[in-house]
Amino acid sequence: MPKIVNHEKQREKVAEAAWRVIRKMGLDQASVRNIAEEAGLSVGSMRHYFSTQSELLSYAMKKVTKRVEERIACIAFSGDLLKDIPLLIDEIIPTDEEKRNEMEVWFAFVVKSMSDPNLAGHRCEVDDALRQVFIKIMNELTAIGMALPDLDIELEIERFYALIDGLAIHAILRPEIVTADMMRRAVHRHLMSLCRPPSGS
Amino acid sequence: MPKIVNHEKQREKVAEAAWRVIRKMGLDQASVRNIAEEAGLSVGSMRHYFSTQSELLSYAMKKVTKRVEERIACIAFSGDLLKDIPLLIDEIIPTDEEKRNEMEVWFAFVVKSMSDPNLAGHRCEVDDALRQVFIKIMNELTAIGMALPDLDIELEIERFYALIDGLAIHAILRPEIVTADMMRRAVHRHLMSLCRPPSGS
Repeated sequence: MPKIVNHEKQREKVAEAAWRVIRKMGLDQASVRNIAEEAGLSVGSMRHYFSTQSELLSYAMKKVTKRVEERIACIAFSGDLLKDIPLLIDEIIPTDEEKRNEMEVWFAFVVKSMSDPNLAGHRCEVDDALRQVFIKIMNELTAIGMALPDLDIELEIERFYALIDGLAIHAILRPEIVTADMMRRAVHRHLMSLCRPPSGS
Repeated sequence: MPKIVNHEKQREKVAEAAWRVIRKMGLDQASVRNIAEEAGLSVGSMRHYFSTQSELLSYAMKKVTKRVEERIACIAFSGDLLKDIPLLIDEIIPTDEEKRNEMEVWFAFVVKSMSDPNLAGHRCEVDDALRQVFIKIMNELTAIGMALPDLDIELEIERFYALIDGLAIHAILRPEIVTADMMRRAVHRHLMSLCRPPSGS
């Protein structure tokens, strides 16, 4: 059993080395040789963990998703949607160094998936899962009567989801302009614009 | 003189071949050899047009920007902001095949620019120019009294710009979900949400 654990740990170590190579040199430089060097392994030993470069990259891509899922699973939701929705979105957008690194790698994989069918399947799965998040947000806001009446829900799902992806990309490309604080304020403002004014106001 | 014209025409032909290679095979396969083959030129003759692969890619990236600028320069603005803003945005988002192809290539360059300083400068210039578009939109809506009072203009600039980039990326990745019609409706809805209700309503 310890051997299996070590094997998986080693695969994770290789995936993390792949992320660093992608961030420093770009995905086009993420060769088995460069990743082995970054991981401090011999090129020969890489075969124990991944049989092809394609398998390695696919694993490294899925590992990004898994990290985000694990963080979301750890959120202590309060039951108050106006607090919980920003908490959830905070785990998707790059509000700190770790998430910024992840997002840079993810973004590279997304572009690569446009010409690489091995990566396209997982990219679509993640896109479906993220769209489901925004479907759920809009449906719950509607169900408890917080959403403004007469919203085109299908359109609002896409508008919210597109805003979040746009903010995430801008934060990666121009961190000095699109800060974590600005992203959070934009999320808050957007959420408020979808909801009825609080009663009493 | 005809020689100079032909030289520039030939450079454009090579840039367009580079775009096709990037879309079919990814930017990591956009070697001088692959681009020459796609353009129907010998590898040797490529040296007449571009001295390095880096110069070629930088030219091909700037050519995408130039196309968008040329389309925007051709718009017949009416003076009515509620019509003109959607017209302008229509030239930035991938509402047809040509713009979708452009956006796919642009997106690849953006990711490459994250680890390639030769491309990063132009990417920032374009980002600055696009942000200026949204600064101008928000300022004009405010100046003529159409914008809602009490908007946080700096935040709304980023929210609008991020929405547009998010929509553009989603339309490239999931054209069956994020159609041209949906993007246009999202732009309209967003614009309306920033403006006072029309008088008389």
